[in-house]
Amino acid sequence: MFLKIIDLAINHGFLKRDILSKLNFEQYKYGPVGLHLLNNLETEWFFHFVINRDITVFLNKDDFTSTFAFSKKMCCDRLPLGIVEKKSREKIDHDLMQDKKSSENGDSIQFCTKFSEDETEFLKGTFFISPTQSTKFFHQFQRQRRIWWRRISASPGRYLLTDIKTCENGSQNVEIRARYPWGDQQIEKLVFNCGVNDLELDDSQLQFKEGRKTVQPHTVSSTINLPTMFLNFLCDGFDEPLFQGKPRTMLRFHRKLAPYMVSFVISGTNAASVSELSDLALYLSRQLRTHHISSLLLPSASKLGLETQYKQYDELGVPYTAVLNDNTLKDGILQLRSRDTTLKEQVHVTNLITYVEKLYKNY
Amino acid sequence: MFLKIIDLAINHGFLKRDILSKLNFEQYKYGPVGLHLLNNLETEWFFHFVINRDITVFLNKDDFTSTFAFSKKMCCDRLPLGIVEKKSREKIDHDLMQDKKSSENGDSIQFCTKFSEDETEFLKGTFFISPTQSTKFFHQFQRQRRIWWRRISASPGRYLLTDIKTCENGSQNVEIRARYPWGDQQIEKLVFNCGVNDLELDDSQLQFKEGRKTVQPHTVSSTINLPTMFLNFLCDGFDEPLFQGKPRTMLRFHRKLAPYMVSFVISGTNAASVSELSDLALYLSRQLRTHHISSLLLPSASKLGLETQYKQYDELGVPYTAVLNDNTLKDGILQLRSRDTTLKEQVHVTNLITYVEKLYKNY
Repeated sequence: MFLKIIDLAINHGFLKRDILSKLNFEQYKYGPVGLHLLNNLETEWFFHFVINRDITVFLNKDDFTSTFAFSKKMCCDRLPLGIVEKKSREKIDHDLMQDKKSSENGDSIQFCTKFSEDETEFLKGTFFISPTQSTKFFHQFQRQRRIWWRRISASPGRYLLTDIKTCENGSQNVEIRARYPWGDQQIEKLVFNCGVNDLELDDSQLQFKEGRKTVQPHTVSSTINLPTMFLNFLCDGFDEPLFQGKPRTMLRFHRKLAPYMVSFVISGTNAASVSELSDLALYLSRQLRTHHISSLLLPSASKLGLETQYKQYDELGVPYTAVLNDNTLKDGILQLRSRDTTLKEQVHVTNLITYVEKLYKNY
Repeated sequence: MFLKIIDLAINHGFLKRDILSKLNFEQYKYGPVGLHLLNNLETEWFFHFVINRDITVFLNKDDFTSTFAFSKKMCCDRLPLGIVEKKSREKIDHDLMQDKKSSENGDSIQFCTKFSEDETEFLKGTFFISPTQSTKFFHQFQRQRRIWWRRISASPGRYLLTDIKTCENGSQNVEIRARYPWGDQQIEKLVFNCGVNDLELDDSQLQFKEGRKTVQPHTVSSTINLPTMFLNFLCDGFDEPLFQGKPRTMLRFHRKLAPYMVSFVISGTNAASVSELSDLALYLSRQLRTHHISSLLLPSASKLGLETQYKQYDELGVPYTAVLNDNTLKDGILQLRSRDTTLKEQVHVTNLITYVEKLYKNY
């Protein structure tokens, strides 16, 4: 099944084969459509880690120590604060090597080894919490993180938290794992560190004020391997429900992740109506795009048959397809086909934007 | 004045000095707050180049030829199509060297030399257009690009298009430049290429269908140096209007670019009201954040004086500051101070979210 997903993903531009890979198994890179998905994933992650936090969160690139000093100053030496960063491979090679090693045991599929190493990046968030609140925060954070994965997933039941493991140095580790037919995948690592200073910071930098006391913060951190997250959502979305007796292959991306939110199909009966409907489709797709809704209008919209196009858009994971036909020219009503139900709703062309905006506003 | 801007930017975490730079003049890197600004800039760029286009646009990373082949197939060999990519330094070193050279003439300030080379990245969009429409497209595109810079600028009059220059190989070049007291800055380069194949593509790959004919597309491309764009908006936003006889330093970022959209000031007269107002501020900032509005609530909000905080938020470029005081506890009305006018509007706490959402929805 994994290979089936990979084939589908390569066909539709989510992945491509890394032709330069020197390893004895196939590795992949992001394809043109995949980069869209990646972008949406990073946006969701950024929203959850940076914007929608109770804690003030700062961004870092390369230089943790100076970012930490700046953040601490801006927060007047008070807790809590967070620092979030995107790291490339070299910098936490150590972690990667461990992951690699553990994946060599047995021949199970490990997402993190499937991607070309050039593409390996980690999203990391570190939160500095007052010792009196750190345990509570760690437990809330575990829950929040699991909810996050579940909310943008096509089958939320897949995501599990492992038990807390205590390491030799006293830190507590929890993993979030996704369950697949071919085995579990580690997709996020949470570490709770009370007192151990494993960051490149002096103890003197780690002095915060709390009322009149001086305290040393506890840290809670999350690390996500970006290609792993990407592959996870490709596999998470893959589904083959039976439709009229035959399996219908599709990628059931959450609305917030789908590279294209609305696609267009033109089904006119003669050249004149096709040309008029094409203009209408162009107009509607422009309108959607002005409203930040990414739409897909291909030259094939008026050339291929309905079923062929539905198949393509299901496999691309487009949640809704607007179908324009001869009647649309008469009464202004188009059909909005849902990927998940294959049912069609009637929407008047003047209401399309408002309706689609509503569909996409909520989770 | 340029140095004054740099000092301000370093103070508030937009920039930091590159301590490893071996050159005989200072170079900079993105600071923690600067990374927020950079993020917003890239989002605006992405929206303008990818989402809000009449043309179907594909994303590329590293491998232009394969992305081009995929895009062409998906568009059924029909024009137009676009490919957009973020390139790191190595790959268009050639262009960079030219820029560097031209900047060595005279001692004028050139944005592109001010940033550490590790950070140099280019945003590039290439559009493949049918020869019959390419000239029209090129002219529209120039206009669109200038409007884009003007729309998110604090002083739109700054942006100019240079005259069209025809190169030896027949391509036409136009630059967008920004006018500053210390001289003009090149901020974007547009190239119109009719027939010359300077991409790494075979002529056979460049065959598109148009009705029954086969045509070779013309290309229109835009290249932006990302650190240059970043520095441009820092300098573009800098302003020192007189306020009560004294210059008031601030960064007048457009709402869509500001790293923080709303900041909070708590001005209670006694400990009890301060603690109650702090809870209210936390509640409101959470609400804003859930609605994708990045807000800034610092521990200093209840500790420093009003004017000190206004100064800090003006210099950080926060467009609106919510001021909570003792009256807010009685009648539920807070004051929303505008950075640009220093005027305060009264807003009921229950209306804050809707009101701020409206402020940020439009350009």
